[in-house]
Amino acid sequence: MSSPPATAVVLVAHGSRSEAANEAHRELCAQVAAVTGLDVTPGFLELATPSIPDALDQAVATGATRVRVVPYFLHPGRHLAEDLPRLVDEASERHRQRASIELTGHVGGDERMVQLLADLARDQG
Amino acid sequence: MSSPPATAVVLVAHGSRSEAANEAHRELCAQVAAVTGLDVTPGFLELATPSIPDALDQAVATGATRVRVVPYFLHPGRHLAEDLPRLVDEASERHRQRASIELTGHVGGDERMVQLLADLARDQG
Repeated sequence: MSSPPATAVVLVAHGSRSEAANEAHRELCAQVAAVTGLDVTPGFLELATPSIPDALDQAVATGATRVRVVPYFLHPGRHLAEDLPRLVDEASERHRQRASIELTGHVGGDERMVQLLADLARDQG
Repeated sequence: MSSPPATAVVLVAHGSRSEAANEAHRELCAQVAAVTGLDVTPGFLELATPSIPDALDQAVATGATRVRVVPYFLHPGRHLAEDLPRLVDEASERHRQRASIELTGHVGGDERMVQLLADLARDQG
């Protein structure tokens, strides 16, 4: 067994009543893991498991000393402005002896999203 | 006044009770318009205006003979599988003398989304 990577990623989604949507998110995590070579696990704000706190605790428990929390959210709102920062702050406090936990920008706020949409609009899918 | 472009784009979002989220979507449309040089207008499935049928009718009314409908949705589900195809079919029927209306893939199903997430995960934001 090799040691786990020092950096782990929790890809955060809102969570859905549709299990197909939740399963699609889990598959997306696997795709991002394959591209990056990092441990990438899902964390759901509500309606699905694991919860974000559980996902963060698990990432630290498996040995990560740095956890990047990537919000798979399109639009700004209370979840991005309040809920996620609070959950990350609480986990940082729980694990401050062992790991740093960092919240990244959300995908919807990224300029590369504009480019992706432009490509779809121009039929360069 | 120049004539409108033959291709118009309706960027479809779910719509939110948060007017800030709806406004962010309208701003995103403006950004995609700036990048593509196309008319890009919002269409909301619910909770905000214009509705998708109204946005499609308006695009045709302004002279577009081809309308690309781009779903700004992350996860597969009933909206993508049923609601959007039905709305596009109905608009195609209404306007079949004047315009073709095409539904593109959604952003969450695009392989470039995996790359965007990988970059965020690896701190290459």
